Amino acid sequence: MKAWQFTKTHEPLVLAEVDEPTAAPGEVVVDIKAAGLCHSDVGLLEDESFPLAPGAQVPLTLGHEVAGVISEVGADVAEWRVGDRVGIALVGDRVPGLGRDGGYSFRLTAPPEALVRIPDGVPFEQAAAGTDAGVTAYHAVVAAGQVVAGTKVGIIGLGGLGQIGARIAVLQGAEVYAAEVKEDVWGLGDQIGVKRVAADISAFADEQLDVIVDFAGFGTTTAAAIETVRPDGRVVQVGMGRLQATISTQALIMRQITLVGVLGGTKDDLRGVYEVLATGRLDPAITTIAFDEIPDGLRRLSEGTVVGRLVAKIAD
Amino acid sequence: MKAWQFTKTHEPLVLAEVDEPTAAPGEVVVDIKAAGLCHSDVGLLEDESFPLAPGAQVPLTLGHEVAGVISEVGADVAEWRVGDRVGIALVGDRVPGLGRDGGYSFRLTAPPEALVRIPDGVPFEQAAAGTDAGVTAYHAVVAAGQVVAGTKVGIIGLGGLGQIGARIAVLQGAEVYAAEVKEDVWGLGDQIGVKRVAADISAFADEQLDVIVDFAGFGTTTAAAIETVRPDGRVVQVGMGRLQATISTQALIMRQITLVGVLGGTKDDLRGVYEVLATGRLDPAITTIAFDEIPDGLRRLSEGTVVGRLVAKIAD
Repeated sequence: MKAWQFTKTHEPLVLAEVDEPTAAPGEVVVDIKAAGLCHSDVGLLEDESFPLAPGAQVPLTLGHEVAGVISEVGADVAEWRVGDRVGIALVGDRVPGLGRDGGYSFRLTAPPEALVRIPDGVPFEQAAAGTDAGVTAYHAVVAAGQVVAGTKVGIIGLGGLGQIGARIAVLQGAEVYAAEVKEDVWGLGDQIGVKRVAADISAFADEQLDVIVDFAGFGTTTAAAIETVRPDGRVVQVGMGRLQATISTQALIMRQITLVGVLGGTKDDLRGVYEVLATGRLDPAITTIAFDEIPDGLRRLSEGTVVGRLVAKIAD
Repeated sequence: MKAWQFTKTHEPLVLAEVDEPTAAPGEVVVDIKAAGLCHSDVGLLEDESFPLAPGAQVPLTLGHEVAGVISEVGADVAEWRVGDRVGIALVGDRVPGLGRDGGYSFRLTAPPEALVRIPDGVPFEQAAAGTDAGVTAYHAVVAAGQVVAGTKVGIIGLGGLGQIGARIAVLQGAEVYAAEVKEDVWGLGDQIGVKRVAADISAFADEQLDVIVDFAGFGTTTAAAIETVRPDGRVVQVGMGRLQATISTQALIMRQITLVGVLGGTKDDLRGVYEVLATGRLDPAITTIAFDEIPDGLRRLSEGTVVGRLVAKIAD
């Protein structure tokens, strides 16, 4: 079968002919239906300081946002059957697309403990995007941000993750305020139920926001969040647009703020994402491309010209 | 009676003759036995941007670390009796020494809901120092730091608060590592049960510390704590030696660190401090001075020449 493989930094993905995988004991084989394209793939291709995951062997088939159908079940796997529709959570050792061959191909092996059942009615493209972008946004808002009905939430950045995060907060019953520098995105805020949008989160300093989730991460955004959230409030840091932030420790102390760094999420978060997707009320913007277009899609990601999440549709 | 009163910034305290207070309904009068001297008094005296507490009227008798004996109980106060030994927690509106006349005198009025009983055997000087320095250190380590038996704890700064914090962590059964730039203080670490002392917390990067409490707050200390604590660990920010810190948001996110700013503590924390003091195993360094020496004591605080906590002994 064909696979788009990473060989080394600054080299394009190579279209290789690889063996079809079979299920060793304790593994399953998944027929890939959809695989999302992630900025971290761009990082691996363009930045030599970007680390390969432990266990990864080059050449490596990329693609770690995967949804598909189980086509073979290895020995010692009790809980899954051929035909089950599954998403692959980014948990455990040797995640497909990071620590072993991944989703920019047609079949892969996966550890059963990483699988989450896809509810009826959730398309594979959404299920694939949910594994990483969805999980990260959900974890930041629901787990780290502790957002529940009635929480007043600030969302910084209405990009791919921020949109999902804002919508999840709205669906939790929160009152959501968003900061987004691109004014042409402000209309989206209305569509997804955000109460007000401004260019800077500090516009909402009088709102006594309980939580601010920073999906942008430009340093200045972290600093503004700490000064804007209510006393005893929480700031959740997801975005990493810059690597450093200069913050007011005076504000952090005097206002007793908690700043939480989050990266990804858990299998429970993926279950939560799939439950929300199954309601039909979370509809993240997804642009579907074909298998052959994966390298071009990564180039577009690198150039920053993508709207919504790019997902390769591998099979019907 | 005599009282040391604040009149305005850049003016020394004035020794005034004031009326003895009486207990209005819902209040008690406390005969002051000991009153601790606090850096924030110096702030009020020297920094015109330092705010007076809400409700404060000038001239104001300072002294907010107070322990004494109830000498009068107002109407509608059921739970306290004349003769009860009490410390005054810094909670609620109009705290003595901040929002109403305080402890640099001989008697004061206090709201019953701020009082905590002093256990037998705990001297008034310790009970006074416990209300602020003790509570802040206890809250940072036990409440915000979540330190329990077996926790691996880093303490940055073995000054007044840091010593108490380190000792409380040791008494909680934690394994404590301390960072202190002054090498002549390192011996104290041994005395209070600290496992190792180094100049910089990053010396303990291999120890997988669960929590680091920064009592110094020089910005660089916050940054080092975020890079040194174990993944998923907590950094508690107490010290405010500088007003800003430049931190690695990359480390915060990739290592999923939580940074918590804390200021003071609760009445429960004061109860916790008194319980520990009653065991006799926490013995914070206290320098006792006389009522007449209060202005000189504040000058020494301002100059940074004080070892341990300064407490004015007002009466036997």
